[in-house]
Amino acid sequence: MLYYAQSISRLISELGKLPGVGPKTAQRLAFHLLNTSDEEALALADAIKEAKEKITYCSICSNLTDEDPCFICTDTKRDEGVICVVEDPKDIVAIEKTGEYRGKYHVLHGIISPINGIGPEQLKIKELLARVKEKPVQEVIVAISSSVEGEATGMYLAKLLRPLGIKVTRIAHGLPVGGDLEYADEVTLTRAFEGRTELT
Amino acid sequence: MLYYAQSISRLISELGKLPGVGPKTAQRLAFHLLNTSDEEALALADAIKEAKEKITYCSICSNLTDEDPCFICTDTKRDEGVICVVEDPKDIVAIEKTGEYRGKYHVLHGIISPINGIGPEQLKIKELLARVKEKPVQEVIVAISSSVEGEATGMYLAKLLRPLGIKVTRIAHGLPVGGDLEYADEVTLTRAFEGRTELT
Repeated sequence: MLYYAQSISRLISELGKLPGVGPKTAQRLAFHLLNTSDEEALALADAIKEAKEKITYCSICSNLTDEDPCFICTDTKRDEGVICVVEDPKDIVAIEKTGEYRGKYHVLHGIISPINGIGPEQLKIKELLARVKEKPVQEVIVAISSSVEGEATGMYLAKLLRPLGIKVTRIAHGLPVGGDLEYADEVTLTRAFEGRTELT
Repeated sequence: MLYYAQSISRLISELGKLPGVGPKTAQRLAFHLLNTSDEEALALADAIKEAKEKITYCSICSNLTDEDPCFICTDTKRDEGVICVVEDPKDIVAIEKTGEYRGKYHVLHGIISPINGIGPEQLKIKELLARVKEKPVQEVIVAISSSVEGEATGMYLAKLLRPLGIKVTRIAHGLPVGGDLEYADEVTLTRAFEGRTELT
């Protein structure tokens, strides 16, 4: 059954492929784009094109970038002796927003997950190894979520990097700031107890 | 503060202009587009461009279309003697999905709303008048939501069209099918009583 003009159908179907966008939302977005000014709608189309054309992986840290090396790797004010390993480019954004971390990054683009057929070779682990061998670092901070796969990935990295004289740490897991003990799940609470520090 | 490569920033900001898309969702969509295949991402960009280039208002009914007149206006199997007046092209889709209505449509592109500075001249009302004068119709069905503005728009149309010998009706308002009396609001329930029909 035909409800829309063909190019509207096509637009709705393409928008519906975005994550979290169902048929109703796709229709709403399509009609929004049709009602909005040409400039605004075409700006979105151009932004998609430009990003797909320009964005590549940084040859040093594997972050998404439009200049190689990326703006973090070329930033000389950052500490080269510390590398924070994350699963995904999005995680870098989250950490950068704290404004506290001044070292470098390395993006694995996934975590070890045998169930999904992802082993160490599919991740940017050999790039990390090559990197620390070329330019020695003191510490690698594993900032990966604490799922079973995340833990396994952390352990795997520690086993590879410790023999090279590199300190491997992982970020603390515990009660979120402002979080109520009452509503914390058991695993988080257990982690919070394990990671307790002395009050001085 | 710079968290993303420039073309990622731009993509996130353009996506963030879509209705119901906040900064977090915009970021998620942007990274999805960066991770997806070139074909899929560029298909979306092209669909936006194509729709903006091709879609215009149908010269007869003011529906959005890529061919003028639109596929509903050119459909000879539909009853030309009945015109259903709607606020928005989306409403046509909703009515078409019922598969029950076989007349034609007319899109007003808004309703009379003095508060928002929208008077009859901003709507496609003169086009409707010209249309019924050129090709006489028996009935105009007002299918507009029953807000104060919607009612006013319906009344305005009735006042214009009745002198031309056209029957002007509005769709029934009442209890949704499957809806519970208990949860219906007072206005809907009042309308349901007013619109009661005899059981035969």
